[in-house]
Amino acid sequence: METPDNATETPGPTGIAAQDWATAAVDPQYRAAVVDLLGALAYGELAAFERLAEDAKLAPTLADKAELAKMASAEFHHFERLTDRLTAIEVEPTGAMEPFARALDDFHRQTAPSDWLEGLVKAYVGDSIASDFYREVAARLDSDTRSLVLAVLDDTGHGNFAVEKVRAAIEADPRVGGRLALWARRLMGEALSQAQRVVADRDALSTMLVGGVADGFDLAEVGRMFSRITEAHTKRMAALGLAA
Amino acid sequence: METPDNATETPGPTGIAAQDWATAAVDPQYRAAVVDLLGALAYGELAAFERLAEDAKLAPTLADKAELAKMASAEFHHFERLTDRLTAIEVEPTGAMEPFARALDDFHRQTAPSDWLEGLVKAYVGDSIASDFYREVAARLDSDTRSLVLAVLDDTGHGNFAVEKVRAAIEADPRVGGRLALWARRLMGEALSQAQRVVADRDALSTMLVGGVADGFDLAEVGRMFSRITEAHTKRMAALGLAA
Repeated sequence: METPDNATETPGPTGIAAQDWATAAVDPQYRAAVVDLLGALAYGELAAFERLAEDAKLAPTLADKAELAKMASAEFHHFERLTDRLTAIEVEPTGAMEPFARALDDFHRQTAPSDWLEGLVKAYVGDSIASDFYREVAARLDSDTRSLVLAVLDDTGHGNFAVEKVRAAIEADPRVGGRLALWARRLMGEALSQAQRVVADRDALSTMLVGGVADGFDLAEVGRMFSRITEAHTKRMAALGLAA
Repeated sequence: METPDNATETPGPTGIAAQDWATAAVDPQYRAAVVDLLGALAYGELAAFERLAEDAKLAPTLADKAELAKMASAEFHHFERLTDRLTAIEVEPTGAMEPFARALDDFHRQTAPSDWLEGLVKAYVGDSIASDFYREVAARLDSDTRSLVLAVLDDTGHGNFAVEKVRAAIEADPRVGGRLALWARRLMGEALSQAQRVVADRDALSTMLVGGVADGFDLAEVGRMFSRITEAHTKRMAALGLAA
């Protein structure tokens, strides 16, 4: 239980990241940005719930169906934590989510999987990109909001299940890899295009992203962030046996 | 914390209902009947999860959608408790569920709601009939299985939400009541016809129901049980403003 005296070697967070919610939320623009973020994340979880429950129908076996239903249920619990948080800071959750409904609905509509494997790749890619993005943003958030965002991103557990199934399918029939690689590329393109639309529409959120509110963010840094996310995606696809 | 000495006034359970699982399961036919029951219940929960998640798409508002997603997630947790129990008694859950998949899938396919209100009535009616049936059966089960069956039937909470919404819709437009009454009748008919198919197919389960294993059950009692369930359904429909 010793705490070594090395505080000077690993500097703690500074700026907003060093503040709790009560302190940081005094700034109305920061507050609005966080409400946007929680609203987007909550609607994202609800949409993911719907999508996974829908994809469960494509499952080849009862055990696979149960696995997807489990993931869907986990997303629903994240949704609940996020809407509970919105309620706790006196924001009506529906109002906070609505601005993001169209972009997320459009994303899901335009990337409806045509079979079980496409559904798995989508669950994996979508979940990974979302995690990467929110983890990047989380580092710039006040300590209370950061804990919540990291907690709901922590235990989705889509990864292993999807990776295992997709790898086995490619091994059994290598042509499947080419088709799924194209699919993963389409998912990434569609996700980026919807993300751009959201950033263009939501002043508070995008101001936070380009450094107007949270410190340490500027336009070049946003560019680097998207590079990191795209790179991580490419690595994941390679690990999956798909050329991204 | 006093326990009044009135054991003679309210006699405790007798026969299998007085035994725990370890004792009752020595009889292989009883064991097979319980595996059937848990398998049917588990698949029913998984199918209900899928159905509710699907119906969430018909929700007129984001809040309604979240409410249905919540119900779906609750069903999934029941599913998990039941499959965990099957695993604990060394039965592979998938194998236990499979014999009931067709009847439940057919039921859901033939009663796909065409709108939000039909979906709500179905959730309410289906849940109520299933609860009534399993509660009747539970009284004849060993104490461990009974506790589990009662626990997973306890907190679905579909009732109030559906009743409130359907009543409001009938008040706003009384013609809706006639259409939904027909729909409820169709649901009941389809449920009975699938139940009969299951009973005809599954020896262990039906033997238990007609008294071959669990005591206190005979054919006349099964008839009375179905009467009680139908009566309860009629009363619920009347309370909902629907002539059953």
